[in-house]
Amino acid sequence: MGDLSAGVVVIGNEILSGKVVDTNSPFLASELRPLGVALRRIATIPDELPVIRDEIRCQHESFDLVFTSGGVGPTHDDVTIEGVAMALGRKVVVHPEIAGKLRSFYGHKINRARLKMAEVPEGAELITDTSVNFPTIKVENIYILPGIPEIFRAKLEGLKPRFYADPFCLKVVYTRIGEGTLAEHLNDTLRQFPDLLLGSYPKINHPDYMVKVTLESKDADYVGRAFAHLLAVLPEGSVVRTEE
Amino acid sequence: MGDLSAGVVVIGNEILSGKVVDTNSPFLASELRPLGVALRRIATIPDELPVIRDEIRCQHESFDLVFTSGGVGPTHDDVTIEGVAMALGRKVVVHPEIAGKLRSFYGHKINRARLKMAEVPEGAELITDTSVNFPTIKVENIYILPGIPEIFRAKLEGLKPRFYADPFCLKVVYTRIGEGTLAEHLNDTLRQFPDLLLGSYPKINHPDYMVKVTLESKDADYVGRAFAHLLAVLPEGSVVRTEE
Repeated sequence: MGDLSAGVVVIGNEILSGKVVDTNSPFLASELRPLGVALRRIATIPDELPVIRDEIRCQHESFDLVFTSGGVGPTHDDVTIEGVAMALGRKVVVHPEIAGKLRSFYGHKINRARLKMAEVPEGAELITDTSVNFPTIKVENIYILPGIPEIFRAKLEGLKPRFYADPFCLKVVYTRIGEGTLAEHLNDTLRQFPDLLLGSYPKINHPDYMVKVTLESKDADYVGRAFAHLLAVLPEGSVVRTEE
Repeated sequence: MGDLSAGVVVIGNEILSGKVVDTNSPFLASELRPLGVALRRIATIPDELPVIRDEIRCQHESFDLVFTSGGVGPTHDDVTIEGVAMALGRKVVVHPEIAGKLRSFYGHKINRARLKMAEVPEGAELITDTSVNFPTIKVENIYILPGIPEIFRAKLEGLKPRFYADPFCLKVVYTRIGEGTLAEHLNDTLRQFPDLLLGSYPKINHPDYMVKVTLESKDADYVGRAFAHLLAVLPEGSVVRTEE
């Protein structure tokens, strides 16, 4: 499998209004990276159909994988399914398998709100995982996940084996010199290793170091040579420690 | 002042790759809400000029206020200033006031990397705040803030008085019934109060409640009447507690 790109659409007024802190997109970011999947965009948007439709359409066309978080459920503000359907030009239909599960679970307590949970974009695929009762809805390259963090995480765990691509190799250098001095050595390393993913993250008031420098590539040999080069050009005594 | 809308562009590969959790956008969300500013979009994107340009341009045209977080500094991956300039069709120029400050601070240690910190989109305004040494760069409706959380927060604090609009009035109902039962009562309330901002947030495994329902409006009387209506239609014994 080649390199996969991904985006995530986080749907929820509660996040934009500061009531809830989104923990799903950081979790997704940290889970996708070791799989070699490059997360390219996190968009947090309100529970509004036209906004959801446009963002989903854009990510659907731009990335290999799209994840949605939130906006699935029985209440008025759960419009993700409809937004995904609109983005793909599909109808919303009741999935007989989910409807059957809901009817057998709720018995005579079934109602219109609960049956809303059986709605899917037409042609959607159900992914069943033994760890979560409710199947994950997938349509084209879009995986529709709930906003509740415990269920988001459990479902993502079940999906991960599908996305294993080619992992990134990471090396880290912590320096006791600041970015103003460091910049020329980073630029020099990038001139020698133009395909290197090189990050520079200053930390203020840290007792040990001033900047964390990250070197990454899917080519372990390449990142190894870039790492050796950077260590060779940095001024003597400027490295606090490294991580490989 | 009328209602203000806002967006934020979070720039940083370190967030997309799961190395760092973005705390700036949740902070911004929680600070803007009490001011009455409606945050409409959080976009987290990589350190890449065309992506930054397109997102900034989109938010610049869509919202009253745009904030950027990250990508300002002396290293190769700090391209926010250039991205903002491109989005607005402006050149990047050296701001003499910032350059002067940098020269007097660094003395003979000044170098090209450090002088990069004096670059701004042409025509930018500097906002000076006594709490932070380095001024905030503003151009048109865009406020350019650094990614380091301590400085982001300090600068935002200084900017807040500019954005005071008209605060939202919030009331909360915690229920011991689930969304499947609750939905019809929420829908009924929305039919009576169509302008209400109504949120429904289920919590799994919480010892006290099943769903947190939020009611909001800038009209305190309107939200008060909607709150009374919802409490009247909910089944007896279904409310755990309320917050006003």
